[in-house]
Amino acid sequence: MKNRPFVSVLAGVLTGLAMSFGLLLSCASAQNDPLPSWNDAAAKRAIIDFVGRVVKAGGPYFVAPAERVATFDNDGTLWVEQPMYVQMAFALDRVKAMAPLHPEWKDQQPFKAVLEGDMKTLAEAGERGLVEVVLATHAGMTTTEFSKIVTEWLTTARDARFKRPHTELIYQPMLELLAYLRANDFKAFIVSGGGVEFMRPWTERVYGVPPEQVVGSSIKTKFEMRDGSPTLFRLPEVNFIDDKAGKPVGINEHIGRRPIAAFGNSDGDLEMLQWATMGGGISLGMIIHHTDAEREYAYDRKSHFGHLDVALDAAAVNKWTVVDMKTDWKIIFPFEKR
Amino acid sequence: MKNRPFVSVLAGVLTGLAMSFGLLLSCASAQNDPLPSWNDAAAKRAIIDFVGRVVKAGGPYFVAPAERVATFDNDGTLWVEQPMYVQMAFALDRVKAMAPLHPEWKDQQPFKAVLEGDMKTLAEAGERGLVEVVLATHAGMTTTEFSKIVTEWLTTARDARFKRPHTELIYQPMLELLAYLRANDFKAFIVSGGGVEFMRPWTERVYGVPPEQVVGSSIKTKFEMRDGSPTLFRLPEVNFIDDKAGKPVGINEHIGRRPIAAFGNSDGDLEMLQWATMGGGISLGMIIHHTDAEREYAYDRKSHFGHLDVALDAAAVNKWTVVDMKTDWKIIFPFEKR
Repeated sequence: MKNRPFVSVLAGVLTGLAMSFGLLLSCASAQNDPLPSWNDAAAKRAIIDFVGRVVKAGGPYFVAPAERVATFDNDGTLWVEQPMYVQMAFALDRVKAMAPLHPEWKDQQPFKAVLEGDMKTLAEAGERGLVEVVLATHAGMTTTEFSKIVTEWLTTARDARFKRPHTELIYQPMLELLAYLRANDFKAFIVSGGGVEFMRPWTERVYGVPPEQVVGSSIKTKFEMRDGSPTLFRLPEVNFIDDKAGKPVGINEHIGRRPIAAFGNSDGDLEMLQWATMGGGISLGMIIHHTDAEREYAYDRKSHFGHLDVALDAAAVNKWTVVDMKTDWKIIFPFEKR
Repeated sequence: MKNRPFVSVLAGVLTGLAMSFGLLLSCASAQNDPLPSWNDAAAKRAIIDFVGRVVKAGGPYFVAPAERVATFDNDGTLWVEQPMYVQMAFALDRVKAMAPLHPEWKDQQPFKAVLEGDMKTLAEAGERGLVEVVLATHAGMTTTEFSKIVTEWLTTARDARFKRPHTELIYQPMLELLAYLRANDFKAFIVSGGGVEFMRPWTERVYGVPPEQVVGSSIKTKFEMRDGSPTLFRLPEVNFIDDKAGKPVGINEHIGRRPIAAFGNSDGDLEMLQWATMGGGISLGMIIHHTDAEREYAYDRKSHFGHLDVALDAAAVNKWTVVDMKTDWKIIFPFEKR
């Protein structure tokens, strides 16, 4: 350093100081309102209070960064799940696309109902019919091929009501929440009843959640060498259902840590919320309550998709925060941003 | 700052500069030889060449940080697996510890053999006998209880030959490799045939690999409320065997990305190596060949544990790097460091 003129050193120091100051300013400004799409009400305050306690070094609720695990349901928590799960719309479209290769489907339920758009008969086929449709459309190809099919479908499929790609029908306040948690060294996982391979091709781009942080339902796969290339072939057999009591199981298998925050919107999330919040330490349990028929949908106890009944009662008992979409969220979707 | 005397400010600035300079120096020195326990031979050069290409921005082999996934076998790749898998030693010790609660084991194989130290009869019971011992000792408690049992066992158990805790019988060159990959924005996963819940309590402390980056075999668990507390109870039922063709399946289920580097030491790692290296892009496949009977063990084609036969032949065909422990590694264990 002895050969550097003093002025140059001083300039360097000042630049350094200015940069540090700029950094401080930009952090402070982001901290001013990390959740701009949330109205200043109980839910927003619960989030900010929770994060503040968790990150406060030396405080009674401090949690080490490595232990800051948050889990998010997907359907109805991060994106729209009405009038039907997006993955179900995908499966129905796939039945139609694959029908020329399956002439027998014309006379075979539940495929006949799908091809005729007869949703009543399809509904009557129940969960067993649904599984049949999912296995017929989700298996019989490699993982690479399936990923490509999902990606291509998402570029063309449109939501009937909003006339937009499903990946635009995501909740802006939840994107802000994900970013806020990340900024505070949380690792956010998706823990969904939906298919893990249906979500992974797009969760990183759309939510900033990388594939290795997505937990979901799955079918079995088989490793095979095909023409000298290793492949994973998707078999028509259920491997794991990541829903209800399966969510804590999936969380433990995949993450191996107990979350300290969990976000859901239906009875399918009840056990995940219990697992995350009833462990003794600081925690945040949150339920997104769909109360806005005008801007999105209003449904809870008697809904076919995203049925919220027991978990809504449990929220009161367990002090989980219930988000009222209508009053808590200034905007619902990113495209509403000015 | 206006009230701080100039000298104090200057002292602060100089301290800051000194610290930055110190940091630069220590980085530079670590970069000089990131693998000090590796002899300067083909294996070490293959690693450094691979990492150099992967991280070279704008280069033909550049891989984005998010895609830099490396998978490591555990037994025989990161720690000693002879004369038997550590987890098997654990299971045998557990049979002895649990015997007072199971008087029937005195007359019941394979438990009788374990209690009498009759390894020949135990070996004759084969894989079915082994599974029976594992299920009897690994199930029937909560995940929290099992984690505690593993942790306590590791503090007292000693390797018969080296008279040390198993967590000290880890390979120093591999620790350096893990650190080197991390420093170059790789995410390293353990992908082991061993039980995922047997590894997770200690992999972060011992290898720097957090629980969510450990993939392994598992038994089924069941979510239950017990006395008002949510628990995951371990059931005596195999869920997944993360070995051989199961390794790519486990990698896909858990990580959802294809590794670009894989490290193993046995035929159980063959399919993982194929999956990682035969995808078309840049990759590194590496096999640890146990060739040092004096400092560790020498075994390959006919070994009972860590059997390396087909994969050794495949290494030549697929241009995987074979590490010769005897000539490639200056030291084997961290405790040999001066």
